[in-house]
Amino acid sequence: MEAIYVWADPLRAFCERVFRKLGVSEEDAWITADVLVMADLRGIDSHGVARLRRYVDGLRTGIMVARPQEQVIHETPATALIDAGAGLGQPVSYRAMQMAIRKALEVGAGFVAVRNSNHYGIAGYYAMMALEHDCIGLSMTNADVLMVPTFGRNAMLGTNPIAVAAPAGEERPFVLDMATSTVPRGKLEVYHRLGKPMPLGWATDERGIATEDAGRVLENFQKRAGGGLLPLGGEGELLGGHKGYGLALWVDVFCAVLSGAAYADRVYPKTPDGKPLPANLGHFFGAWRVDGFRPVEEFKAAMDDLQRRLKHAPKAEGATRIYIHGEKEYEETERRLREGIPLNPKVAADLRAIASELEVEYDLEEWSATAGRQSLKA
Amino acid sequence: MEAIYVWADPLRAFCERVFRKLGVSEEDAWITADVLVMADLRGIDSHGVARLRRYVDGLRTGIMVARPQEQVIHETPATALIDAGAGLGQPVSYRAMQMAIRKALEVGAGFVAVRNSNHYGIAGYYAMMALEHDCIGLSMTNADVLMVPTFGRNAMLGTNPIAVAAPAGEERPFVLDMATSTVPRGKLEVYHRLGKPMPLGWATDERGIATEDAGRVLENFQKRAGGGLLPLGGEGELLGGHKGYGLALWVDVFCAVLSGAAYADRVYPKTPDGKPLPANLGHFFGAWRVDGFRPVEEFKAAMDDLQRRLKHAPKAEGATRIYIHGEKEYEETERRLREGIPLNPKVAADLRAIASELEVEYDLEEWSATAGRQSLKA
Repeated sequence: MEAIYVWADPLRAFCERVFRKLGVSEEDAWITADVLVMADLRGIDSHGVARLRRYVDGLRTGIMVARPQEQVIHETPATALIDAGAGLGQPVSYRAMQMAIRKALEVGAGFVAVRNSNHYGIAGYYAMMALEHDCIGLSMTNADVLMVPTFGRNAMLGTNPIAVAAPAGEERPFVLDMATSTVPRGKLEVYHRLGKPMPLGWATDERGIATEDAGRVLENFQKRAGGGLLPLGGEGELLGGHKGYGLALWVDVFCAVLSGAAYADRVYPKTPDGKPLPANLGHFFGAWRVDGFRPVEEFKAAMDDLQRRLKHAPKAEGATRIYIHGEKEYEETERRLREGIPLNPKVAADLRAIASELEVEYDLEEWSATAGRQSLKA
Repeated sequence: MEAIYVWADPLRAFCERVFRKLGVSEEDAWITADVLVMADLRGIDSHGVARLRRYVDGLRTGIMVARPQEQVIHETPATALIDAGAGLGQPVSYRAMQMAIRKALEVGAGFVAVRNSNHYGIAGYYAMMALEHDCIGLSMTNADVLMVPTFGRNAMLGTNPIAVAAPAGEERPFVLDMATSTVPRGKLEVYHRLGKPMPLGWATDERGIATEDAGRVLENFQKRAGGGLLPLGGEGELLGGHKGYGLALWVDVFCAVLSGAAYADRVYPKTPDGKPLPANLGHFFGAWRVDGFRPVEEFKAAMDDLQRRLKHAPKAEGATRIYIHGEKEYEETERRLREGIPLNPKVAADLRAIASELEVEYDLEEWSATAGRQSLKA
């Protein structure tokens, strides 16, 4: 089936209505919707409205609290700790990053750790908030247990992403937004659907050995039978898998050990009789004021020059382009603002179902970009 | 030939004498010697006294300035920029990290960027300085151009390492100290000597294609013929090579673009007639006060629990141990403090040659640990 193309604004408004209906405040509904739709605009479909169901379910069961008691637990001029009160991850993360930026503007750098939170969407969203303040932004989160440590049989860590955003002048900002696993689980699902063998280095089987069989890994996840995603660098130490494992551990230390959130395989705990409890995820946000080190104009000119040197450097045989991190996503955003966001028909059907269950207006297809896109094609 | 075993203390004293003879101040000589010997103690032989010749040559030719004008260029409560005056990388880095820690103790977090510097030794040394202050430490540096960007033919970036050190309670501190390339150049030299094919994913040939031929890559480095070390994640994007490239770029942005040092392939510049100029490397140091977020005892207890959960988790088939980052190096340090530091006979010969050229006392073999080691073996 063909994708349905929708515009970002009505898609965001639809998500807002859904969150409002579930008791979320106006501000928090807007933030959460904006983070989701930004993922779709940037082409990170796995973290966009395709996940709306997950938040709806969380809010309905109360695992995610619609009106949480969000609290600043501790604060110094450059640091703070926030307890999210088991609310949605996005709004508390937005405010934590705002606080980190405010601290950076005041004393040069600011860092805020968050505990007792939930899935926060794309890491890059928060890091990029620093850009308009001429700050460098940092965002990290721990996540559901999917990654095996080097030499381990079982998944013990999340895909724990790191995002760093730095402003530039005429060139686009540098936006690194990477999971510390080689690939996300979604990549395995694609290979499984296509019946394609995976490259060795993506995941391990229930014995903890690298496998090409994506279906087996996904089944093992279901059954908690062992194995999981491999850290960046793959199996063992030969290609640096211990480095990816180390990066994931770094993220867990900053997000969870420093904040008092759940770490390693303690995230998403359950009651003894198997009922889910609040996830208790942790995040970490940072901002550095560029002119805490060097005049902004000098920094931006050097960022431009660095990017151009890389982009204009000779290409490997068979390659046509050297990318700067964030470049592909900025281009995708421009395209999707112009042509609409492609929704997988299954995702569109799920949004319609959510609308009907919650009795909120579903007008996305009315606002569909298909006509515009077809005329572009013609 | 068998290695010669020497003790850390006389080895450090020897290096100090060498630096003093070349005009370096007492404090700077001690710091530089300590950083070198710490590398040898931790088992990172490539960054230990095996590199003494490089610093000796740098100081003799004046590319490294023995008595630099080190200057704090700009400062805020949480940030600072230091110009190293083209001095040795180690002393300015030591003082920059001290400053970052002082700032962390005052306002919660502190960051110092350094420009116009030289090779600073092991990244982990400076990150670990934070530990005794119950701070988390960060250390990064850019470096000589050896790594290709994803889809690029030529080396454009250094192996740009990242080090993070976090204290623990009864367990050892977490010390991640990793180059952002899959492997360092030294690993290629070992494979070349053994005539062994490299794993694909370590390096590319002059066309920019992954190769098993270590000798060819090393020869291409000499001739500047193209190719180089691959970023963590290997060739292209299939196994995440763009992530390792992104990490290396992050390090270059923080160390060089933010400080005003040379970035990408601009490091180690030369005059139009090919004479080397000061390297103008950049570094970045950071410290976060643990209790800027959470009481230290709670943090340390969680660090211990995190480590134990990982270490006691089930192992992959054929594996016997899951490591925490820094653990191998702590064990190696204990062993080398007990049994002595093994010096490759070529390295020992080079140290003797340096002693004779500079007319400083060489007493290492007098202090050799061989006897102690032999009795341990017996």
